[in-house]
Amino acid sequence: MRKVYLDHAATTPVHPKVLEAMLPYFSVRFGNPSNLHDVGREAKNAVDEAREKTALLIGAKPEEIFFTSSGAESNNFALKGLAQANNQKGNHIIVSQIEHFSVLHPVKTLEKSGFKVTYIETDKTGLVDPADIAKAITKETILVSIMHANNEIGTIEPIEEISKITQEKGVLFHTDAVASTGWIPVDVKALGVDALSLAGHQFYGPKGAAALFVRKGVRIKPQLEGGIQEEGRRAGTENVPAIVGLGKAAELAAAEVPHRMSSVSALRDRLQKGLTEKISHLVINGHPTRRLPHNLNVSMWYVEGESMLLFLNMQGVSVSSGSACTSRSLKSSHVLVCIGTDAAVANGTLLLSLGAGNTAEDIDYVIDTLPPIVQRLREMSPLYEDMIKKEKVG
Amino acid sequence: MRKVYLDHAATTPVHPKVLEAMLPYFSVRFGNPSNLHDVGREAKNAVDEAREKTALLIGAKPEEIFFTSSGAESNNFALKGLAQANNQKGNHIIVSQIEHFSVLHPVKTLEKSGFKVTYIETDKTGLVDPADIAKAITKETILVSIMHANNEIGTIEPIEEISKITQEKGVLFHTDAVASTGWIPVDVKALGVDALSLAGHQFYGPKGAAALFVRKGVRIKPQLEGGIQEEGRRAGTENVPAIVGLGKAAELAAAEVPHRMSSVSALRDRLQKGLTEKISHLVINGHPTRRLPHNLNVSMWYVEGESMLLFLNMQGVSVSSGSACTSRSLKSSHVLVCIGTDAAVANGTLLLSLGAGNTAEDIDYVIDTLPPIVQRLREMSPLYEDMIKKEKVG
Repeated sequence: MRKVYLDHAATTPVHPKVLEAMLPYFSVRFGNPSNLHDVGREAKNAVDEAREKTALLIGAKPEEIFFTSSGAESNNFALKGLAQANNQKGNHIIVSQIEHFSVLHPVKTLEKSGFKVTYIETDKTGLVDPADIAKAITKETILVSIMHANNEIGTIEPIEEISKITQEKGVLFHTDAVASTGWIPVDVKALGVDALSLAGHQFYGPKGAAALFVRKGVRIKPQLEGGIQEEGRRAGTENVPAIVGLGKAAELAAAEVPHRMSSVSALRDRLQKGLTEKISHLVINGHPTRRLPHNLNVSMWYVEGESMLLFLNMQGVSVSSGSACTSRSLKSSHVLVCIGTDAAVANGTLLLSLGAGNTAEDIDYVIDTLPPIVQRLREMSPLYEDMIKKEKVG
Repeated sequence: MRKVYLDHAATTPVHPKVLEAMLPYFSVRFGNPSNLHDVGREAKNAVDEAREKTALLIGAKPEEIFFTSSGAESNNFALKGLAQANNQKGNHIIVSQIEHFSVLHPVKTLEKSGFKVTYIETDKTGLVDPADIAKAITKETILVSIMHANNEIGTIEPIEEISKITQEKGVLFHTDAVASTGWIPVDVKALGVDALSLAGHQFYGPKGAAALFVRKGVRIKPQLEGGIQEEGRRAGTENVPAIVGLGKAAELAAAEVPHRMSSVSALRDRLQKGLTEKISHLVINGHPTRRLPHNLNVSMWYVEGESMLLFLNMQGVSVSSGSACTSRSLKSSHVLVCIGTDAAVANGTLLLSLGAGNTAEDIDYVIDTLPPIVQRLREMSPLYEDMIKKEKVG
């Protein structure tokens, strides 16, 4: 049976060249970068080199890159760290309603400790209107956090336009670029942001290595305390092999993003066209054009996402239902709810996320496999029966 | 030139069997454990198995193990998480003065947010007196955190006796067992603790995987928010390969601790004897008998620790000066200051930490190499000259 992995938004495999770069740092060059001897210095040099490569991918300076253990940690660090370090200037934070939970939950915690938060609505494609940000900013506003691209529906937000507003108003601007880095160009200067989160395992790097960019001069309060690592901003012995892997993945991405964008989006479009033609009552979520090249988020009426997922799995196809990160929680996606998707159709959502390793044959296999599954499941649904009857009457 | 690594307290190499166990989880079984399809389930099963092995090493239940990215994160999580989740019962915390900074700095932050903290003194060997804990506990006390073994001087604290007191008084008890796990028996039931930190890279596991044990029924507030991972206690995609490595390292440790204790402590005693015989004005820090088997912390008068470290490095020997984790910070060890070591001699401290791979030849090489370095450095010190003159006069 063919195996087709269409869940790259959940995690990517580690690229063979990335693993090759990491391997010496487990048992041979295994030093602790804090140590002054050669074994330690070798590890420190490797971390420094990875910092340079990661910085280069996003147009930052190496000293603006702080390594963390996950995109979620980078987001927690950014929101809590920036809010706590700058609260003498004000106590108001602005985020969109469709941010990742690793932005929304820290913000809830900040709210409990006295911060005020404005949650910006998006339009039905998931786009934030920069004018809404401008209107929401008050004298108390210290921080805006809007994601670069949504991890579920793939919509790419107008970060450059928002940053013009935040710069003019003197408000810090963080963007969660965990879903976008490695798939579309990410340049902190072009975006105009003060802080940016990214995660290695989203673009062929290893799990366990991520980064937070913090523009030089911006104050941030450490969340992991008690060590001199990362310039005192984040304690804990550096995960040297994973950091080396993140650096290599960044180097590969810097070279491959244009190709990934064109080849993967062509396959995505083929998949979208095939499924749209073969499956009735299907909705494409997210923005029609401002969308991540590897993202296809589709909702189908009269069918459960989890059932489709499990039947696809039996046919060798791996996809997510709803949010990649919370599919085990089996809750409706808050993103789909916020963009106004009907709850009934939101429950029939699949997130198909492609990767550089997928082929046209993979895509055609899914175009052949999914529609009969949907048909069979719908035939078991009383709602679908009602709908068919009504259509016949109509 | 012989290469002798005597800095296992800073980090250990990854055991070949550990790396072998990890390897499939980078590029082949690369799934995200949150996903419901086979690729995700394979990763989830691997994490579950590692959780069982880690639990088994310390006599815990699998559901009491929460994976983190480092010992520092486990300590931050324990101190802040336990204090914040239990502050309706009181606001007083007790720690020793010689805790790791990843305990002391979070406690300082808690102090700023309204908690009261008592810092317990130790005796000159670094031992906490359980009677001091009993005296310090008030009606407001909610948490005691005393390390299992000190990471610098190796002193093993009377955790069992302290836990009798905390249990009687109904106070939560956390122990930082990052330095001890994998080197001496660590059993949460025998120790009687409610929470315990450990880190993989301290005992032949990988960097990037650590754990916090939290006894079932004990409330802890998540610090990394926004994901369902680790039962909602710690957000972020699991570092699957590193967690698998931690599980394997735990399995190896469970089998090898008795051998590590006898063979490594025999080599340590040989090193201690050799250096004591050949170097005058030398002090052994820590407790003479209640000490980690791989730990030798020595202070020498009239000589700088960093100079010895760098000369040893030129001879192929890797050691730390003062605290392994902060040697790059070049500050005097707070542990040595707290146990009352004279500042002049504290600056001449080396931490030699042995490992299962060291041989008698390694040890004899260091016994031959260090004394002439000390002698040469002392001959350049005016203080040493004065001392020699005084001794002659005397």
